[in-house]
Amino acid sequence: MRIALDAMGGDRGSEMAIQGALAAVGGRKDLRVVLVGPQHLLEQQLAEHARGQGDALDRISVHHAAEVITMDDSPVDAVRKKKEATIMVGFDLVKNGEADALVSAGNSGATMAAAVRKLGRLPGVSRPGIASFFPTLKKPVMLMDIGANVDCRPQHLYQFAVMASSCSRLLLKHERPRVGLLSNGEETGKGNALVKETHELLKKSPLHFIGNVEGRDVYRGDVDVVVCDGFVGNISLKISEGLAEAAMQMLKREIMKTWRAKLGYLLIREAFAGFKKQVDYAEYGGAPLLGIDGTGIICHGASNAVAIRNAIEVAASMVHNRINDAIVEALGEFAA
Amino acid sequence: MRIALDAMGGDRGSEMAIQGALAAVGGRKDLRVVLVGPQHLLEQQLAEHARGQGDALDRISVHHAAEVITMDDSPVDAVRKKKEATIMVGFDLVKNGEADALVSAGNSGATMAAAVRKLGRLPGVSRPGIASFFPTLKKPVMLMDIGANVDCRPQHLYQFAVMASSCSRLLLKHERPRVGLLSNGEETGKGNALVKETHELLKKSPLHFIGNVEGRDVYRGDVDVVVCDGFVGNISLKISEGLAEAAMQMLKREIMKTWRAKLGYLLIREAFAGFKKQVDYAEYGGAPLLGIDGTGIICHGASNAVAIRNAIEVAASMVHNRINDAIVEALGEFAA
Repeated sequence: MRIALDAMGGDRGSEMAIQGALAAVGGRKDLRVVLVGPQHLLEQQLAEHARGQGDALDRISVHHAAEVITMDDSPVDAVRKKKEATIMVGFDLVKNGEADALVSAGNSGATMAAAVRKLGRLPGVSRPGIASFFPTLKKPVMLMDIGANVDCRPQHLYQFAVMASSCSRLLLKHERPRVGLLSNGEETGKGNALVKETHELLKKSPLHFIGNVEGRDVYRGDVDVVVCDGFVGNISLKISEGLAEAAMQMLKREIMKTWRAKLGYLLIREAFAGFKKQVDYAEYGGAPLLGIDGTGIICHGASNAVAIRNAIEVAASMVHNRINDAIVEALGEFAA
Repeated sequence: MRIALDAMGGDRGSEMAIQGALAAVGGRKDLRVVLVGPQHLLEQQLAEHARGQGDALDRISVHHAAEVITMDDSPVDAVRKKKEATIMVGFDLVKNGEADALVSAGNSGATMAAAVRKLGRLPGVSRPGIASFFPTLKKPVMLMDIGANVDCRPQHLYQFAVMASSCSRLLLKHERPRVGLLSNGEETGKGNALVKETHELLKKSPLHFIGNVEGRDVYRGDVDVVVCDGFVGNISLKISEGLAEAAMQMLKREIMKTWRAKLGYLLIREAFAGFKKQVDYAEYGGAPLLGIDGTGIICHGASNAVAIRNAIEVAASMVHNRINDAIVEALGEFAA
């Protein structure tokens, strides 16, 4: 298993990618990582970081790519003009069979655009999309789409449900993932025009459709796959991140007000760390691109080495579990 | 100033409404509250609760209403069939000038429908909507619409911006409220079709439009009014509630794991309480209906007495500040 890693993608530079790669191959002997980026720089950094890590270096290689697509680049323009960019070269490796998947913490729009351009869509897929894991009180829930498709038709949402359901079943070992449709009320008949039509499609499908779910159901863990358009999904994801960030700052402000609370914080710190681990995106292994003819994972721009390592493992698991074969089969079987 | 209060609306029964009413008139001598519900029951409960509260009783009266619209009732059917329901009778009081505003913790769809039916829309308003306050690191932000209009046209969102801006200016004392359009990216050109068209309308308007804002900007406090359709707004609100709830439970679970953390919790409890106060919807005084020819406030079904009292005060402040006059004037001036 060989995973290509965009070494220049994250906000935190190539060192984070290298550390993530080392952690990944250190943990699993069957994994190889191909770092994609400026050859000279990466080889130098790799040699420094790999000191004392035994044979890990044998399982990491570097593939040269001269350009970088930045977070500010327009995805469409960048994919057209920056042909030597890490993301483009990375997907070339996947296309040519030199890598099984690409992981990138870079510009997510450009990663999606590059995936479609280089690898194309799976047969039967109208619109590839981006899925993401949300932490819950129970198992993580998979939400799709989180931003690739802002204007959708019912047929697109239906396919998101089929694709995410296949992925959830194989990756998270749900026998029959419970699929919910994100709406402004649980009752059938609630929702905007798109949701109402999609509801009818899902009701007739062989998926384990449990009906509409509300925003507050997402974090309860009583649904495995939540379907929505990319506009709503993106706002759901980012409003959650924003709230978590703001809440932590508000709590910190309160704690800093008294010595008593500061002392209490020292005692409670480990519980906070355990909690943070539970809600941290880093633990959830990035956002799989679903519907492309290949495997790609987008990581948060702020990803640390743990997040990169987890994303590499999720990518390997997607390839190992033949998610794409399952998607093609399910789309054929469940054609709406 | 006389505020009608739907005494049967909340999940927690009429006692909560009575306590809220007592707290409101106890704090402000210029306020009167009219409890709307079953006369005999309410008078009995009122007499019990008001013991020892001096002259508060003089400023609370009861107006009989025999029926209740439940949370499970369909708003459209309920408004047509339950003519004697507390919400219907309450808006009759507003219509007839016997009350200045209605506060209800009941079925929000029915409250909106009843408001439109009994009071009608303000001149120039295409679609009345529901605004809500979100806590932030700085001042609360007002988001509109949170659920009344799930399918919107650009003109509707434009009017939400005008109405919420007037309300924010007068209620929260912002001189020139910063208006943001909720989207999946800050750059102009990001968004679904509805957002892109609305962006153009807002750009040309005399509002203090600061452009698109993302989900994560909502809680930062760098914008005063956030505009979105009711589908997206409802999901934003409920996903926030769900995350806050789940996060608290996850944290509690971690704290309960060790004695050390439990002890720490005892010391830190007050900071938690201070934090909870900051994020609690109860502190934010409910969700104003904007665009109706009268004043109405919807409270959370789970409202406690503090939430009811705050909503009564916000209702009084809306009337006192002549929000509706400001809305009509702004809509005339800012006609898109």
